[in-house]
Amino acid sequence: MAKTDIEIAHEVTPLPITEVAQNAGLSPDLLDLYGNTKAKINVAALKDKPARGKLILVTAINPTPAGEGKTTTSVGLADALAAEGHKTMLCLREPSLGPVFGMKGGAAGGGYAQVIPMEDINLHFTGDFHAIGAANNLCAAMLDNHIKQGNLCNIDPRRIVWKRCVDMNDRQLRHVVDGLGGVANGVPREDGFDITVASEVMACLCLASDIADLKARLARMVVAYTYDREPVTVADIQAQGALCALLVDALKPNLVQTLEHTPALVHGGPFANIAHGCNSLQATLTALKLADYVVTEAGFGADLGAEKFVDIVCRQAQIAPNAVVLVATIRALKYNAGVAKTDLGRENCVALEAGLPNLERHVHNIQQVFGLPVVVALNVFASDTPAEIATLTQLCQQRGIELVTCEAWAQGNAGARELARSVVALCDKRDATSSGADAAATSDTAATPSAHLRYAYNLDESIEQKIIDLATKVYHADGVTFTPVAQKQLKQLTDQGFASLPICMAKTQYSFSDDPTALGAPDNFTITVRQLKPAAGAGFIVVYTGDIMTMPGLPKVPAAINIDVTDDGTITGLF
Amino acid sequence: MAKTDIEIAHEVTPLPITEVAQNAGLSPDLLDLYGNTKAKINVAALKDKPARGKLILVTAINPTPAGEGKTTTSVGLADALAAEGHKTMLCLREPSLGPVFGMKGGAAGGGYAQVIPMEDINLHFTGDFHAIGAANNLCAAMLDNHIKQGNLCNIDPRRIVWKRCVDMNDRQLRHVVDGLGGVANGVPREDGFDITVASEVMACLCLASDIADLKARLARMVVAYTYDREPVTVADIQAQGALCALLVDALKPNLVQTLEHTPALVHGGPFANIAHGCNSLQATLTALKLADYVVTEAGFGADLGAEKFVDIVCRQAQIAPNAVVLVATIRALKYNAGVAKTDLGRENCVALEAGLPNLERHVHNIQQVFGLPVVVALNVFASDTPAEIATLTQLCQQRGIELVTCEAWAQGNAGARELARSVVALCDKRDATSSGADAAATSDTAATPSAHLRYAYNLDESIEQKIIDLATKVYHADGVTFTPVAQKQLKQLTDQGFASLPICMAKTQYSFSDDPTALGAPDNFTITVRQLKPAAGAGFIVVYTGDIMTMPGLPKVPAAINIDVTDDGTITGLF
Repeated sequence: MAKTDIEIAHEVTPLPITEVAQNAGLSPDLLDLYGNTKAKINVAALKDKPARGKLILVTAINPTPAGEGKTTTSVGLADALAAEGHKTMLCLREPSLGPVFGMKGGAAGGGYAQVIPMEDINLHFTGDFHAIGAANNLCAAMLDNHIKQGNLCNIDPRRIVWKRCVDMNDRQLRHVVDGLGGVANGVPREDGFDITVASEVMACLCLASDIADLKARLARMVVAYTYDREPVTVADIQAQGALCALLVDALKPNLVQTLEHTPALVHGGPFANIAHGCNSLQATLTALKLADYVVTEAGFGADLGAEKFVDIVCRQAQIAPNAVVLVATIRALKYNAGVAKTDLGRENCVALEAGLPNLERHVHNIQQVFGLPVVVALNVFASDTPAEIATLTQLCQQRGIELVTCEAWAQGNAGARELARSVVALCDKRDATSSGADAAATSDTAATPSAHLRYAYNLDESIEQKIIDLATKVYHADGVTFTPVAQKQLKQLTDQGFASLPICMAKTQYSFSDDPTALGAPDNFTITVRQLKPAAGAGFIVVYTGDIMTMPGLPKVPAAINIDVTDDGTITGLF
Repeated sequence: MAKTDIEIAHEVTPLPITEVAQNAGLSPDLLDLYGNTKAKINVAALKDKPARGKLILVTAINPTPAGEGKTTTSVGLADALAAEGHKTMLCLREPSLGPVFGMKGGAAGGGYAQVIPMEDINLHFTGDFHAIGAANNLCAAMLDNHIKQGNLCNIDPRRIVWKRCVDMNDRQLRHVVDGLGGVANGVPREDGFDITVASEVMACLCLASDIADLKARLARMVVAYTYDREPVTVADIQAQGALCALLVDALKPNLVQTLEHTPALVHGGPFANIAHGCNSLQATLTALKLADYVVTEAGFGADLGAEKFVDIVCRQAQIAPNAVVLVATIRALKYNAGVAKTDLGRENCVALEAGLPNLERHVHNIQQVFGLPVVVALNVFASDTPAEIATLTQLCQQRGIELVTCEAWAQGNAGARELARSVVALCDKRDATSSGADAAATSDTAATPSAHLRYAYNLDESIEQKIIDLATKVYHADGVTFTPVAQKQLKQLTDQGFASLPICMAKTQYSFSDDPTALGAPDNFTITVRQLKPAAGAGFIVVYTGDIMTMPGLPKVPAAINIDVTDDGTITGLF
């Protein structure tokens, strides 16, 4: 029987985190230790250190519901780069407790490509998500208290847009009526809870450059509207200082290590639909100061995660990936050809080819829309057959797409060495062409931090035009339909001064379109925008193309019932 | 202008926590560091080490709503014992975030008698309360999911007794209807939230002897009743393993230090009405192994906190206090005489004498009911006048009550040296009489861990008789009235096998009676028991004598609006 992730993790003795830090160039005085295997980094002390590293973005084709192993591939790639002799750091998102107790599946990599201590990282870790939840809920309590105590801001209780949150899959809390029980117990109103990772506080924390910036972002968050439909912000209820006080430690990136002792910053974890889906900018910028190669991942497929990484994160921070790794699996390609979930483990080379246009379109986007070099990493599953792998390899060769297999899950760094060498070669090649290429920077987008990087839309276009540019260039839609509500909101947001913000598309992760059943590389469709919401603290406008679930539920048999603790405190059953 | 607590705290450079640990006899391998000033102790490694210390219980007379400074007195006493050359450890409860953002007032001591780092302790600390909240809410999510997915346990959704919680004063969540929005979103039902400290998970953690005991307690917790009115436990929904996994670290006591570097275990914080109101037993037992004098405090006045410490905690752990410190203030004595809150700062020696019966009754209880030696610590406030202090001193002398003034808030250990010497003398005196006194142990209670300690009731009496014994002996009630509902529950709990548990009275903290306006030392009253609930995991029956608020609200001007963070991450405005 194959070993479980936690069994594999427990076979490795972690290095003391101080040693991991030292190897990464971090002196002990920059660390707040959390036990012997976790630390927070006081990054303020590194403020004036210049960036030196090359940035590798790991993204994916449109996934199956089980995910395609971006994290596992990222860990394997980082370990392989380190094994090849490069000073490497890995940047990942922190897992939420929701999936840990819900569906079986970790968020700290898997097999021989994990970050450890995996049980800590998957459970409370250093408390960041709890801090974010507390800040989110303090904001809610202060808001409702404001109304209960006299409502000086003239807040319309029917137009409160701030939800409470828990870091748990708890569908019972999606729609509630609270404030019941009479005058002493609040003001009755319709309300609801999100999972913590969907809180705008999470997005603010992940994009903040320092404490002052974080506090300013928190202050700008819109929590409600007045009876006159004017936005009410956190600043209006004087909550930004207290919220920020709850987040002082959470803002510091967390240092851990892979099974092979490569330093890893695991920090932040915003949703990739209603938010931007990347680990904290603080972590990525810190890693770029310390390492020669920095591997980071973005959520969902490249249509969502990579696009947001470029258009929101890179644009704000003025950074650019030197190379992109597009993770694909045989299973996901077959899924994109319409094969049923239950049949994905069965050999089907015809379906593989039928699903390939999904991969091709992502490769096209990365190269042509964003101007970035890409290598496809085939994350090999045990159910993949040699015929399937040979077929895919041949198909990619025919189309001029560079593809390497990656077996990090089964082999650790050894399974990702070829991928590492491809990535290094892509970076070197880009370096060689860069010197003469600056003049060729395209003029249809704002200034970018590299001669090659292009954004999907220009910030100074109207909100409407930004959405159209994104949908036509990246999704390959024919156009965008705005519902009457959305049209009204376009005008309101513009009037309220939010027009210059980037956009953050909330869209299904299963399709380039807004229809989760339109797999592969759909054509002849339009995107329907139903709603727009300002995330004024995060600094983007969330564009809803359908109902987005921000509070998952537990399955019939939750993973929680298999989790246990031995008498000596060892956690078992965690994947 | 007087310095604030946080300003005083920031003037002291804490010792590295490893040094505090070493001074306390704890080697570095027993610690999980949380930064340089906090650590968790792996107490399992100390399992076979015998207890050596004397236990000092700090309790109080019936308080004003502002509290009487038990924590400040406890800190000062511990510092003074240490300054007198005794190896001392302090055990305190952890603060909740609710009061921190609600009413102005810290829970880490005050003035020159604080535990530090106070901002960490008052905010997230080592994440214990967040872990307890997550475990509590995972239980709720699994319970509602169980019903949504088919309800194999036949749970009656109208008889769910498990509430969700947040560590926040949030009255809006007291009474809610959740599960709204149709079939996919749960099962609509009436529900509500408690503050985290009111969760039974908190009480379980604070009374658990080790991981196995914690898991067994969690498994026994009653979360609902079936349509046949049978209890449904955590074990029935298979949640105890996952809940326990969330609590592995939280169960380990937290080591910090006072401003004077005395080692302090700050761990756990259950409510003192619906729960037992003491820091974790793990912390107290650990301290007794390491120190010669251990100072611990119990919640509210001695009628609640000290009674529960004796009848629940000491009985379970087979320990006994060697001496009791009864904290009194001039303000609280005047309050007990009926002086209005706004007039407590005005000299009033007549009222002082009129309030004295409250103090006398507590002294009587401690000495005569529980058989313990007591010294009264007058916690001096700046508003106390020399005439008032002289009056009180004289009144106590006349009545043979030992009273010493304590000015730890203003002076640190120097303000508590006399108290420390009194405590040591009480312990020594008791030691001297103990050898011949064992035979004199009273026979009307179960075996106690000391020849002197007596319990207020015997465990093998009926639930009804236990309540009557407690009410008549400790509260000096004439008797107990059970409402029809309570009578029915007495029978149900007995039928369900809970009759042998101790009782945990949920009663107002302002009076010996169940009427918060009956101040002083009321006579000629009966206690009305309205409801009984099994806390089968904690191991007691909660006896409700009225409505107990388990979710506070924020005041009109919450303390939160004064809290801020400077650009370098320093928290300000926290008291």
